This record gives sequence, structure tokens and C-alpha cells, in this order.
Amino acid sequence: MRQVWSAPVRFAECDQGGVVFNAHYLAWAHEAVESWWAALGLPFAETGLDQRIKAAALEWRSSARYGDTVTVDAELDRMGSTSFTVALTVRVADRVCCVVRTTYVAVADGVPVPWPEQVRTLLQS
Amino acid sequence: MRQVWSAPVRFAECDQGGVVFNAHYLAWAHEAVESWWAALGLPFAETGLDQRIKAAALEWRSSARYGDTVTVDAELDRMGSTSFTVALTVRVADRVCCVVRTTYVAVADGVPVPWPEQVRTLLQS
Amino acid sequence: MRQVWSAPVRFAECDQGGVVFNAHYLAWAHEAVESWWAALGLPFAETGLDQRIKAAALEWRSSARYGDTVTVDAELDRMGSTSFTVALTVRVADRVCCVVRTTYVAVADGVPVPWPEQVRTLLQS
Amino acid sequence: MRQVWSAPVRFAECDQGGVVFNAHYLAWAHEAVESWWAALGLPFAETGLDQRIKAAALEWRSSARYGDTVTVDAELDRMGSTSFTVALTVRVADRVCCVVRTTYVAVADGVPVPWPEQVRTLLQS
Repeated sequence: MRQVWSAPVRFAECDQGGVVFNAHYLAWAHEAVESWWAALGLPFAETGLDQRIKAAALEWRSSARYGDTVTVDAELDRMGSTSFTVALTVRVADRVCCVVRTTYVAVADGVPVPWPEQVRTLLQS
Repeated sequence: MRQVWSAPVRFAECDQGGVVFNAHYLAWAHEAVESWWAALGLPFAETGLDQRIKAAALEWRSSARYGDTVTVDAELDRMGSTSFTVALTVRVADRVCCVVRTTYVAVADGVPVPWPEQVRTLLQS
Repeated sequence: MRQVWSAPVRFAECDQGGVVFNAHYLAWAHEAVESWWAALGLPFAETGLDQRIKAAALEWRSSARYGDTVTVDAELDRMGSTSFTVALTVRVADRVCCVVRTTYVAVADGVPVPWPEQVRTLLQS
Repeated sequence: MRQVWSAPVRFAECDQGGVVFNAHYLAWAHEAVESWWAALGLPFAETGLDQRIKAAALEWRSSARYGDTVTVDAELDRMGSTSFTVALTVRVADRVCCVVRTTYVAVADGVPVPWPEQVRTLLQS
């Protein structure tokens, strides 16, 4: 597991209950996953593949608030033949706020295809 | 299952791939669930309980785009003692775009409590 | 002036002060302007022109809140040779919340061009 | 003029034209202004005053895109007796994307009041 993204909570991300609205965790997850892929050197552009989100699962354990800075750690959660799942842990300091799992499939010319061996190897590195 | 919410897709909800960005499905789910609760006559204010989202799971099947109008149907997916799960089906016309399942717990004075019988009965009505 | 758009305020649009966060008025303005142009029959696609926002000015008079439904009226505020400005009045019932003025220029192949006479005539109709 | 805020452009902030959607500039302005006030040591909490946005004016000069990092510089644009205006310049590297001017009034117990001398002095420092 490695930290791949961090940002101060924005005022507009907090709802009238004074906590981050749930949907923003998915937007953060996107930034974190892209950053993780860049750090792994995933050759998406080169392979001509699009990564498409197929599913997401979020479990909240505590709230983030305005004034907090969130960090996101990423690790591979499950590697299948045609899809893989990333586990992203969103924290404020040591406290876990939410675990987001996002599942991606590969698409070439609009058609789902298996992830190439090169991508599978890098994701498991 | 009943239709509880509908809205035209907004320009700012679409990303540079020309489709609705994933996080907006969670924001739509919130509006749809609130509308469903209101239609059921759920007495949240009266019971002094807060409904708190505990988990969400989303599965995408197709994309919504600018110019589309989405509809959301709601039904009870699972009734537990301390939590319940709602299944929300987001469609453009007859085509399913995403199924969102959101799980709620009851909180009174910051402490999780069982859902009252009255709420459980209404949810299963 | 004619009503061109309306929507219930969304929960995620309200900040921890319990009122709609300022940036959402610009997103509403976009939807309202697009709707106004469609109602006028503006032939953007046919002319091959892109309308590009150049400036926006917002003045708030009162707040919109969760539970409110906002309406937006549109009218031409100023017609120049290369730009025009739309005035959008956002209300909750009869109460004005915000007046948004947005200014657009025409762009063809990335270069600013005058608005065609046909567009100028329709905007002033 | 001093740099008060910076952030990578987020994927969900870009629209299907491939550029940052206009409303996000206002959300960035909020973060930048709050950061500027904190840097100046503005005693909002101590004075019991709320700062309320009254007006905003935005002028776009170029686009920001996914992959860019934006910076925001702040300076006092105009100091009135009951309101002040901040000029925020959003750039990608040396290129100006947008100048945002936001005007704030002071509110105490829901009623507009003059800005205290202490605040006026700090803003002009």
C-alpha cells in the first residue's frame, strides 16, 4: 500500500451536516487511481486501451471535515482476467474515513478486451 | 419498484469522455432516496433519528450523456435490524445505466441505534 | 424575460452554512442559457460556431436552500458586434436570489469571429 | 500580490470540451480567499462576523486542462466602508486563465455591518 494522493478538504465538498458529502469520495478516488497508475508507469496510452470503471464500493467509517487534509493509499485488491479492483483507503491523519474499491475493465475500440500481460504484471508489482 | 426521481443530465456532470462522471451517480442517488422517503412518509424528523450512509455500491452498465434525461427507480433491497439497503436503478428511457445500492444506519445523538419498527414497516410497505 | 429553467435545489449544492454554495449558480446559468438558446432556435450547430463564455458577473440578493425550487428567467442584456451578454435571474418563488450575467463570444476553428446576423436577430427577438 | 493557493486540475472539473468548466473557478476562488485570509491573520472568528459573498466577476483569458496545475494569486482590489473586493488571478505557469473578483460584506447576527478597522487594516497590509 502506498500513498498516492492527498488534498485539503474543500469548503464546497462539505454538506450542511458539516461533513464531506459522500459523492466526493468517488471523485477523490479517481484522482488517486490516476496518480497510482502514473506512479506504476501503466502504459495506457501506448496500448491504445481505455480503462473504464465498471463498479465501485464505498464503506464509510468516519467523517472528513473542512480543515482536514485527506490522504489516499492505493493497493491492488483483486486481479481478474478481464477486470481488476483497486482498494483506496481515505484517511485524515491515522483515522480511516472511507475505503473505496473501484473495478476497471479494458476497452479497445468500444469493445471489452482482456488486460494485457504487461498491465497485469505492473499492477501486481 | 417505483420511479422517485428524474432530471436532465447537466453539462457540468459530463467529463471529457462525453459521459456522466461516475461520482454524480451518488449525488443523484441521494436526491432519489430522499424523494422516496418523502413519498413513503418516513417520519425521520419526528423520531429524532438521523439516517447516515454507511456503504454504497455502484455497477455501471451503460453511459448517460448530455441531452439525456435520467430516471431513478427505488426499492428496498435488504432490511436488517440496524441497517437497510436501497436499490436505485438509473435509466435513460429503458436502458439501465447504473444500479446504486446505498446502506443507511440510524443515529440518535451521534450513537447508532436500531431502526424503529415504524420505519421498518414503512420501508417494507 | 421568460422562464427557461427550473430545478429543486440539491442537497450536495448546499454548504455547511445551509445555503447553496456560490459556484452552483454558474452551473445553473449554463443549463438555463442552453435551454434559452434551444427555445430561440439558435442554429449553433448549423453555423459551425462555438459559443465560448468570456465573462460572468453574479450579484447575490438572498439565499436558496435545500427544499427550495429555483427558477431562472433569461433575457438579452447587451448585444455587441462580437459578444452578447445574457441576464439570468435566479428566484425562489418571487424572491430574487441572484442575477447572473454571462457574456459569450463566437469562435470558429479556434478564432473569434463576429456573431452572424441570423444569431443577432434571434437573440433580439 | 501573493500566491495563496494551488492545485492540480481534477478530471471531474473538465467538461466534454476538454477544459475546466467555468463554475469551478468560483470554487477555487473560495479556497484561495480563505487561504489568503488565514495568511493575513484575519480575526473573523474573534470578531463574531461572518463574511458573506455579495458579488463575483470572472473574466476568462485562456483554458485550464486536465494535467495542468493552477495557481491563484490574491490582492485587495477595492476597500469600501461596508464591502471589499479581492482580485484572484488563476494561472497555469505564467499564462493567465481567469481573473476572479469577489466582493464580501460583513454580517453580524444576520445584519450587514461595517468591516472593523482591524480587518480593513489587515486587508490593506
